[in-house]
Amino acid sequence: MNTDPRDFLDGFDRRDWQSAEADDGPVRLAMVGIGWWTRDQAIPAVEDSELCATTVAVSSSREKAEAVVADVETVTHGVTYDEFEAGEASDAYDAVYVCTPNALHLPYVRAAAEHGKDVLCEKPMEASVERAESMVEAADDAGVRLMVGYRMQTEPAVRRARELVRAGVVGEPAHVTGHMSQRLLEMIPDPDQWRLDPDLAGPGTSVTDLGVYPINTARFVLDAAPVAVSATMHAAAEAFDRVPDERASFAVEYERPGGGDGANTDASGDDGRVLASFAASQNATRSSRFSVIGTEGRVTLEPAFAMEPRRTLTVARGDASAEVAFAPRNQMTEEFDYFADRVLTGRPVGPDGAHGLVDVRAIAAVYEAAATGERVTL
Amino acid sequence: MNTDPRDFLDGFDRRDWQSAEADDGPVRLAMVGIGWWTRDQAIPAVEDSELCATTVAVSSSREKAEAVVADVETVTHGVTYDEFEAGEASDAYDAVYVCTPNALHLPYVRAAAEHGKDVLCEKPMEASVERAESMVEAADDAGVRLMVGYRMQTEPAVRRARELVRAGVVGEPAHVTGHMSQRLLEMIPDPDQWRLDPDLAGPGTSVTDLGVYPINTARFVLDAAPVAVSATMHAAAEAFDRVPDERASFAVEYERPGGGDGANTDASGDDGRVLASFAASQNATRSSRFSVIGTEGRVTLEPAFAMEPRRTLTVARGDASAEVAFAPRNQMTEEFDYFADRVLTGRPVGPDGAHGLVDVRAIAAVYEAAATGERVTL
Repeated sequence: MNTDPRDFLDGFDRRDWQSAEADDGPVRLAMVGIGWWTRDQAIPAVEDSELCATTVAVSSSREKAEAVVADVETVTHGVTYDEFEAGEASDAYDAVYVCTPNALHLPYVRAAAEHGKDVLCEKPMEASVERAESMVEAADDAGVRLMVGYRMQTEPAVRRARELVRAGVVGEPAHVTGHMSQRLLEMIPDPDQWRLDPDLAGPGTSVTDLGVYPINTARFVLDAAPVAVSATMHAAAEAFDRVPDERASFAVEYERPGGGDGANTDASGDDGRVLASFAASQNATRSSRFSVIGTEGRVTLEPAFAMEPRRTLTVARGDASAEVAFAPRNQMTEEFDYFADRVLTGRPVGPDGAHGLVDVRAIAAVYEAAATGERVTL
Repeated sequence: MNTDPRDFLDGFDRRDWQSAEADDGPVRLAMVGIGWWTRDQAIPAVEDSELCATTVAVSSSREKAEAVVADVETVTHGVTYDEFEAGEASDAYDAVYVCTPNALHLPYVRAAAEHGKDVLCEKPMEASVERAESMVEAADDAGVRLMVGYRMQTEPAVRRARELVRAGVVGEPAHVTGHMSQRLLEMIPDPDQWRLDPDLAGPGTSVTDLGVYPINTARFVLDAAPVAVSATMHAAAEAFDRVPDERASFAVEYERPGGGDGANTDASGDDGRVLASFAASQNATRSSRFSVIGTEGRVTLEPAFAMEPRRTLTVARGDASAEVAFAPRNQMTEEFDYFADRVLTGRPVGPDGAHGLVDVRAIAAVYEAAATGERVTL
């Protein structure tokens, strides 16, 4: 970590991951799944990007796909899912962004892989562990890159928080606290939406869709792996009658590399076991927060996970604390440019399929823990 | 709730519970257990109080008791535990504050009750459910008041937070998040201290000593009862080798009166079940926070539980939020004066023995849940 405040502030939102230049691109993207996220967030984010451009829209309906062609200047082709799988317009894109409902990720990642295209797949990877494993296999077999869309990993505030933790600013991490909540039915006023349908979303909604943020961000910031979970869930509102988790409270135990097995290891007590207390709800006020509490200090990000305009990174140590606020960066633009940078420079992606699979297993374990009332080891 | 900001700010730290006046007192207190908390916090707090005065010091050692007589002007008698139990100097005090190690609360509460004295007993009430039950019985049999020392219940910021939640400012509460951590061995640099000795502290240290704060504050702010817990704990540092919880992460499910049984009840989803995600550690940087997240907004207190000079109450709703900061009130002075007010006016105490017993049962359940890896219902 650079300890000069001038450098820290000047470099706060630097792209410490970027090697490619605009002239190397653009990576031409096919967007698979034209829901509100793709239309309102992903496509505009790519329009602002340095290294990529959307050229193909893929939807269940030709009309929706053609509407994107009409609306977005760079988009030259609108095709259906079936046409995409058959390889139509595959000369018009270099890589694929998959943003369908969770349980429909696998077929389009598989199709993209078969066409030899690198893939950026939204999180969570799939609706079940088995399908996520098949996805990793499909990408490996085809020799294409598979990146999972963890936008927090290219968020400048998260990257700076990670540097601070790595540099020992909080001492040895002991706890993580994190939550994310939103009013899903106010955002998308349709009780029949896929995020509330276990056939399309996976085992639930709040942990699958929101809880994945603190689960993965803790892994990234701590450089640690989840090893056990316990959980409790509750659903009461009618719209949530097919899922167990209108809201969920869950604990995740993380093991840091170099840590021991949970037995006493040294006088400092650091054997790498960090306890995380998380909460997630699709039916509570929009709110998110993420904090790492260590022996010597803490690092907090608030708001943490939502696409909000301004987030604050607070670093506290002893009796002193400092806050860093910065002008918003579009997280999706950062994520797409990171992906494109990796494609253009031929380097591996950070949050790859094997990385995403760990979260799918952790999420499945959280639902199992809530259903059985028992701690589940991973 | 009074919605005029002038009244809210002017009345922020008002004693909405006080009926007695200084002329009615003072209630003369015997302090049982002369550790650092009694010397550094409780006795000075009573010196600043309106309604009480410390007149008797009770300690294991005559020297420690006599030292208090020498140091504190109002203290006229220093007696040993044995002498206290035998009724010595019982004309010199009206009520008793018990601040011994947890597992020594019962005998002195019992002795005080036998002498016909009202008791303020530190939390948690005792080291086991059985002993806490015996304590309630002893006070009931003697017809004396038994108050449990929850200083958050007379903390102005907590009382205002409770009013805001009751008035519906956060909508229906869905989640509570809370944590409390400190570096016990820096505060009391003795690995043989009672807080790390299960024979004196009870089943552990972080949940027993710190976790009790968010557990009880949530009950108070939500007007709700804990109905189930799940938990995970970890201990690695050598000083924590006799307890399971150098750190703990635990979930508590609260049921609000008027709520249902967990089944779907109405379209709003409110059946009163609130999920709390808590963390506590005796070996992490001093930090505490408490937040209620509802369907419409959230109320947050930070720092929440430590005796820190300045805490901030944040109220967020939709896109707006407000922060209230106020000059520090000594929480122990508030607590002692509340107790004295009840004694002087002949009214029942809020956090009484039956109230405290609920937390002792919840804490025992948290340790059981961590030991068995299973959710425990209360």
